[in-house]
Amino acid sequence: MKATVYVRPKPGILDPQGQAVGSSLRQLGFDVGEARVGRVVDLELQARNPAQARAELRLMCEQLLANPLIESYEIELADDA
Amino acid sequence: MKATVYVRPKPGILDPQGQAVGSSLRQLGFDVGEARVGRVVDLELQARNPAQARAELRLMCEQLLANPLIESYEIELADDA
Repeated sequence: MKATVYVRPKPGILDPQGQAVGSSLRQLGFDVGEARVGRVVDLELQARNPAQARAELRLMCEQLLANPLIESYEIELADDA
Repeated sequence: MKATVYVRPKPGILDPQGQAVGSSLRQLGFDVGEARVGRVVDLELQARNPAQARAELRLMCEQLLANPLIESYEIELADDA
C-alpha cells in the first residue's frame, strides 16, 4: 500500500526555511507573500486495510516523521493500493 | 492566490534522507518498504488568473524551488483563490 505524509510547520511557528525561500523568490522578482516549507514523505507499507495503514502512519508521524509540538501532518493513502 | 508546490527526488535518483527515514522506521518496528522524502512549499502569490499563476510557479520551480536535474515538481492551486 502506498501512502504519502505531508508535514508542515504549524501556523504561528517560525519557519526560517520558508522565510529564506520567500525572500529569495522576491529577490528573483517574484511577487510572493508568505512562503512555508514542509516535507513530503512517500512510503510503501504492509498493511491489511486502509484503517490499519492510517493507524500505523499516525504512529510513525508521532514517533519519527513529525515533531507534534511544532509541526502538523496529513496522511494520504493511494487509491490504487 | 494560494499555491502549493511538491518537490520530490526523481525515480532512480539516490535519496539519502528517504533511506534514513526508511531504516529508522524499520528500527522502530514498522514494516515499511521504500521511503522517499521531498519538500512541500506553500506560497501566497499575486497573480491575475490561474494560468498566470501556473506559469510563474513553473519559473519559480526551475529557478529556485527544485533542482530539475534530480527533482520533479507538481503545482497545485487552491480552489478558493
